[in-house]
Amino acid sequence: MGDLIGTATDGTLYFARRGEFERIEKLNASRLEKTEILAELARLNTLYMIAAAGSGHIGSSFSSMDVVSYLYRCEMDRTKGDLYFSSKGHDAPGLYAVLIAEGVLDEANLHKLRKIDGLPGHPDVAVPGMVTNTGSLGMGISKAKGMAFANRRLGKGGRLFVMTGDGELQEGQIWESLISAANHRLGEITVIVDHNKIQSDFSVERTSSLGDLVAKFAAFGWHVERIDGHDLAAIEACFQRLRAIADRPKVIVADTVKGKGVSFMEGTSIDSDVEMFKFHSGAPQSGDYTRAVQELIDRINGKLTGLGAQPVMLETVERKPAPVPAEAPARLFPAYTEALLAQAGRNDRIVALDADLVLDMGLVPFTQRFPDRFVECGIAEMDMVSQAGGMALNGLLPVVHSFSCFLSTRPNEQIYNNATEGTKIVYVGGLSGVLPAGPGHSHQSVRDISCLGGVPELVMVEPSCPEEVGPLLDWCLNGHQRSSFLRMISIPYVLPFKLPAGYVPEPGRGVALTEGKDVVVISAGMVMLAEAVKAAGLLKAQGLSVKVVNLPWLNRVDRDWLGATLADARLLVAIDNHYLTGGQGDVVLSAAAELGLGLPCRKLGLSAVPPSGTNEQVLRAVGLDAEGIAASIAAMVQSVSGSGTQV
Amino acid sequence: MGDLIGTATDGTLYFARRGEFERIEKLNASRLEKTEILAELARLNTLYMIAAAGSGHIGSSFSSMDVVSYLYRCEMDRTKGDLYFSSKGHDAPGLYAVLIAEGVLDEANLHKLRKIDGLPGHPDVAVPGMVTNTGSLGMGISKAKGMAFANRRLGKGGRLFVMTGDGELQEGQIWESLISAANHRLGEITVIVDHNKIQSDFSVERTSSLGDLVAKFAAFGWHVERIDGHDLAAIEACFQRLRAIADRPKVIVADTVKGKGVSFMEGTSIDSDVEMFKFHSGAPQSGDYTRAVQELIDRINGKLTGLGAQPVMLETVERKPAPVPAEAPARLFPAYTEALLAQAGRNDRIVALDADLVLDMGLVPFTQRFPDRFVECGIAEMDMVSQAGGMALNGLLPVVHSFSCFLSTRPNEQIYNNATEGTKIVYVGGLSGVLPAGPGHSHQSVRDISCLGGVPELVMVEPSCPEEVGPLLDWCLNGHQRSSFLRMISIPYVLPFKLPAGYVPEPGRGVALTEGKDVVVISAGMVMLAEAVKAAGLLKAQGLSVKVVNLPWLNRVDRDWLGATLADARLLVAIDNHYLTGGQGDVVLSAAAELGLGLPCRKLGLSAVPPSGTNEQVLRAVGLDAEGIAASIAAMVQSVSGSGTQV
Repeated sequence: MGDLIGTATDGTLYFARRGEFERIEKLNASRLEKTEILAELARLNTLYMIAAAGSGHIGSSFSSMDVVSYLYRCEMDRTKGDLYFSSKGHDAPGLYAVLIAEGVLDEANLHKLRKIDGLPGHPDVAVPGMVTNTGSLGMGISKAKGMAFANRRLGKGGRLFVMTGDGELQEGQIWESLISAANHRLGEITVIVDHNKIQSDFSVERTSSLGDLVAKFAAFGWHVERIDGHDLAAIEACFQRLRAIADRPKVIVADTVKGKGVSFMEGTSIDSDVEMFKFHSGAPQSGDYTRAVQELIDRINGKLTGLGAQPVMLETVERKPAPVPAEAPARLFPAYTEALLAQAGRNDRIVALDADLVLDMGLVPFTQRFPDRFVECGIAEMDMVSQAGGMALNGLLPVVHSFSCFLSTRPNEQIYNNATEGTKIVYVGGLSGVLPAGPGHSHQSVRDISCLGGVPELVMVEPSCPEEVGPLLDWCLNGHQRSSFLRMISIPYVLPFKLPAGYVPEPGRGVALTEGKDVVVISAGMVMLAEAVKAAGLLKAQGLSVKVVNLPWLNRVDRDWLGATLADARLLVAIDNHYLTGGQGDVVLSAAAELGLGLPCRKLGLSAVPPSGTNEQVLRAVGLDAEGIAASIAAMVQSVSGSGTQV
Repeated sequence: MGDLIGTATDGTLYFARRGEFERIEKLNASRLEKTEILAELARLNTLYMIAAAGSGHIGSSFSSMDVVSYLYRCEMDRTKGDLYFSSKGHDAPGLYAVLIAEGVLDEANLHKLRKIDGLPGHPDVAVPGMVTNTGSLGMGISKAKGMAFANRRLGKGGRLFVMTGDGELQEGQIWESLISAANHRLGEITVIVDHNKIQSDFSVERTSSLGDLVAKFAAFGWHVERIDGHDLAAIEACFQRLRAIADRPKVIVADTVKGKGVSFMEGTSIDSDVEMFKFHSGAPQSGDYTRAVQELIDRINGKLTGLGAQPVMLETVERKPAPVPAEAPARLFPAYTEALLAQAGRNDRIVALDADLVLDMGLVPFTQRFPDRFVECGIAEMDMVSQAGGMALNGLLPVVHSFSCFLSTRPNEQIYNNATEGTKIVYVGGLSGVLPAGPGHSHQSVRDISCLGGVPELVMVEPSCPEEVGPLLDWCLNGHQRSSFLRMISIPYVLPFKLPAGYVPEPGRGVALTEGKDVVVISAGMVMLAEAVKAAGLLKAQGLSVKVVNLPWLNRVDRDWLGATLADARLLVAIDNHYLTGGQGDVVLSAAAELGLGLPCRKLGLSAVPPSGTNEQVLRAVGLDAEGIAASIAAMVQSVSGSGTQV
C-alpha cells in the first residue's frame, strides 16, 4: 500500500490508492475531520492525474473540492436517487478523484485521465458516476430541471446538486434556466456556485463583473445562501438548513479560492495586467508539482498525526518527460497575433472582441497595444456576437474571438442575424478540429463548417501553416466584402510540407503540396494536411502517387480550378478535420458532382463523436493519422478499381 | 386628401395620408395632445397595413405605439445621432406607421407591407429608418451596446433607445447583455420593456412568469423606472427624469395593454385555457377590421373636435378578398397533431416541450389531453433543449417544438450536447423553408439542414404531404435509435401529387412522384415538390421527361438506391428549400460524386438572403416557382448537352 514519503522529489509522481482512503474513513474522528483529510488526499490524486495526463484543470478542481467531498461523504444518498454533477465540467479531475475515493470509479482510472478509453477531460456519461455531459457552459441547471421533471413524472425521488462556476454565470442560459425553476418550485434542485472569483484568464470582477450575485439569484425567485466554501462546518450547517426548504430551488454562493490547498496555486489576489492565474488549465511543471505535493503531504500528515494515526502511504511512479518532437512544430497563433497587430496598426476601425480566452486566442499583445479597441465580453458569446453586429453597423470592423466549438454554435443565430445586415465581421475560432483530443467532445470542434458554412457570403478559411495566416487574415479584412470565419488549430504541429514560393491564396482555389497522378487528396489545416502528406509518402512506397492539395477555402470551391486539378486523377479523396456530413468534403464532392467527370470520389473524416484521449491515440482511433489515411486510400483505390468503374 | 368617414363599412380599407399627420401637427394644442392623436392615427394606418398585407402583428404594434410615438415626436433628436429600434421586431408595422407619419419613410410604403421590395414583416436595415435587423428575439440590447461602443470610439454622440417585449425577456441573451452594460456604465442606452403581459399564445404569467421584473433589472445594476406606457404625461416625466442619469443604463418597465386602442383587441384579461389572445399576429377579419377602424375614427374625431379642428380625412381602398385556391390545400400540422396524440397514447414516456408556440406547433390538443406531459418553456430555446436532455437521461422520450429558424440555431450547441449523450430526442421544427415569406429572413428557415445535419446520428426528415407525417414521426419515435429532426412546413399548400399506394418511408430512399428518363429531380417537402412536379409538367411540353423524386431524408442518402435511381438519367437536379450550401442538395450531390457515374449534377436553391414578400412573389424572385425551376432545368440540360459532357 505504498510508501511513507518524507520529501517529495522532482521526477516522481505520487498518488494514494483507494486503501488509504478506506483507512482514513475508519479512523476514530468526526466525519468533518475525516472529510477534511480525504479532500486533501483527493487533491493530491487530482494533481497526480493532471501531471500524468499533461493537462487538466487544477484551479477549479481544487476550489470545488471541499464542497464536492462533503456532498459525496455527508449529504447525498445515492441509493435514494440523489445526483451530483458539475455544470462547468472542467473540475472533472477533482470529481474523478472523489469518485475513485468513494469507490464509484475503479482506481485504475487514476492513470487514465485524458487517455483513450479512460477519463475524458470533461464529464461524459460513459464514465461511471457521471450523470450528464458537460464542458459546454451554462447547461447544467436546465439539465437538472429536465431530470427533476422526469423524476416527478416517473415517481422517482432524489435531489439534484449542480455545481456551476462563477464565470459560467455570464452565460445567458443560466438566467434563462433560473426563471422556470422558480415558477415550478423545483425544491429538489440545489445549485452550488463555486465562487472562486477567477475565470479562464482574469478575475471575474475584471472580465465581466457579476455584481451582487445574491441579489440576482434572489430576484429570480431562488432561495440563496452564501458561505465559505472551504469551511466544512459552514457547509454542513448550510446543507442542513436547506433540507427544510422544499418550495423553492436553492442556490449556495460558496466563496472559494481557486487552486485552494496549495499556497502558491491559490489565486486570491491575482488580478493585474502583468500576471494571470497560472493554474486554470495545463499541468504543473516538475518543480511546481513537487512543491505542491510536499505541501499536501505535510498537511495531510499533520492532520493524521493530530488524530494519532499513521502518516499517509503513497505510491510513486516516475514522471515521464513530455515527448520532445524531433522537429520544431509550427504554431498558428503567434503568426495570428503578429498579423492582427499589423492590420490593426494600419486600420483604426479594427476592434477585437473576446469571450474569456484572451490568452488562448493570442490576444494579450493586442490588449496591451490597443486597450481602447479591445472588448472583453466574458463568457457570453451571444452577447459578444450581437455587440459586434452593432459595432459593424456603426462603422467599426470587429474581429470576434472564441473557440470554434463555441463560436460556431452558441451564437449561431446571432452570426446569421449579423450576416443579414450585410456588414463585415471577422470571426476567429481557435481550438478547431479534433485535436487537442484531451478536453473531449465539448471542445473538439468538428461541426463548425456545417454550422456556419451555409451563411450567405460568410466565407470560411483555414490556414495550412503559420505563413498562410497573414494572407488569409488580410483577405478576410481587406479582400472580402462581407463576413468571414478564420478557422484556427491551436496545437503545435510538425509540418512535413512547405507552401510553394510566391503562393498567394485565391478564393476557392487550392495549392498542391505534393505531386502525384493517381489520387488527388484535398484537405485543409495543419493536422490533416500533415497527415495526408505523410500518407502520400507511405503510399508512394506502394506504387501510388498522391497529389495532396491544400484548399484553405472551407465552403467555397472554384469549379474551373477543381476541374483542372482533377483532370488526370483516378480518385478524389477529401479529408475533413470535421464530421463527414457538412464539412469541406461535402462542398468539394458536391462541386465535383456538378462537373460530372465520372471520377469516383471519397470522403474521410469523422463519422461518430470522437473520443477523448491523447492526440496520437485519437487520431489513430478515428483513422485520420497518416497510417489510417494511407490504408483507407489504398482500400479506396482497390475498391474503385475492382468495381469496374473507370479507374 | 381623402374623405370624411362617418361610418366605416365592410369591404373597405381606410388609411390616412401624410398630409393628415402634418395638419394635426400644426394644430394649436400641446405636444402631448397632438402626440395622442397622431398615435391613434398611426394605429389606424397600422391596421390598414396589416389588413392589406393579410398578416402582421397588431397586438404589440398597438401596445408599444404610445411610447414609440412619444420617442419620435418628443424625445429623440435624430440629428444628434439618437436611434430607436425594436428588439422584438414584430411591432414593425406600428413603427412603419410612425416612420411614415414622421416622413422618414415614404408614404407609398403604406401599401407595401410584406410585399417584395416593400416593408418586411420584421425590421431590415434596407428600409429607411431601420437601424438593425431584428425578429430573432433577445439581441437588441447587445446590438445597442456595440453601437454605443462604436459611437464612443468614433467620437459620435447619440442615445440608443431599445424596445423589448416582456416575453422576450425569457431569452437568456437579454440577461447576458445586461451584465456588461452596467459594468461599462452605458448611460446612453435606455431600454423600454413593452410590458403588455401577453406573449404569442398566453399570458407571460402563465407561460413563464418573469416574477419581479423591477427587482431583476435592479439586481443587474440598471436604473429602473416603471410607468403606465399609455399615459403620455407619465412617459414624458419619465424620459425627462432619465436625462439626468448618465452613469448607468436605464430601463423603463412600461405597463401596456396588448392591442391597446381597440376595445375588443385589448388583451387585458385573456388568460384561460379556452381562449388565447387573438390579435398577436395575422390580419383581422373584415367585420373586426371595420369595427376597429370605427372605434379609432370616433376617438380621433372626438379629440380633433375637442380641439376645434376638422374631423380626420381618410383615403379608402377596396379590401381585396383573400385568394381562394382552386383546390383544397394540404396542411401538415393537423396530421402532426393527430400522429403525436396517437403516439403519446401508446407510450407514456413521450412528453412534449414547447417554446411559446403551442398554437403554431399544433400542440393545443396535446396540452388538453396530456397536461402533465407538456412543458411550456417560454421563449427559452436553450433551456428547453437542455431540459429535454435531462428528461431523456432520466427515462423520458421528449419531443421538442419550435420554429426551425430558432430551433436549429439558438440551442444549436445544446442539441449537440444532448447528441453526445446518446439519448433519443425528437426535435420538431415548424415554419421551415422560405415560405411563408411575409415575416422575413429572421423567420425563413433556410439554413436548418446545414446547422444540424452534421450532428452524429441525428437524422433529419421532412414530410412531403400530410400522409407522410405519421410514418415519419413513427420512425423518429420508434424506428430510429437516436435523435431526429422533423422539418415541417407551416403554410397550407396545394399538392399536385400523391404518394404511391403502399409507400412506406425507408431510410435514405426516395419515391418517384412523376416518371421521366431525361432528368431526375430530387427534393423534399410540400413546396419544392409541388413546384417541381408542376415544372415537370411544363418541361414535358418541351419534350423533356422529368422524374421528380421525394426524398424525405434530408441528411442521409442510400447509395444503392441513388445509383439505381440515376442509372438511366442524363442530369440530376437537387432542389433545396434551403441555401445551396449545406442543404439536402449537397448531401445528394456528394453521394452522387461517390458513385462516380459521370452524370452532370446541379443544385437549385437559395444563394442569397431571401426577400420578404408574398409567397408567390418570393418564390418567383428566387427562381423556385414552377416556371423558374422549369427554366433553370431547361438551361441546365442545354448547358450540359452543349458542353460536350456525356448527356
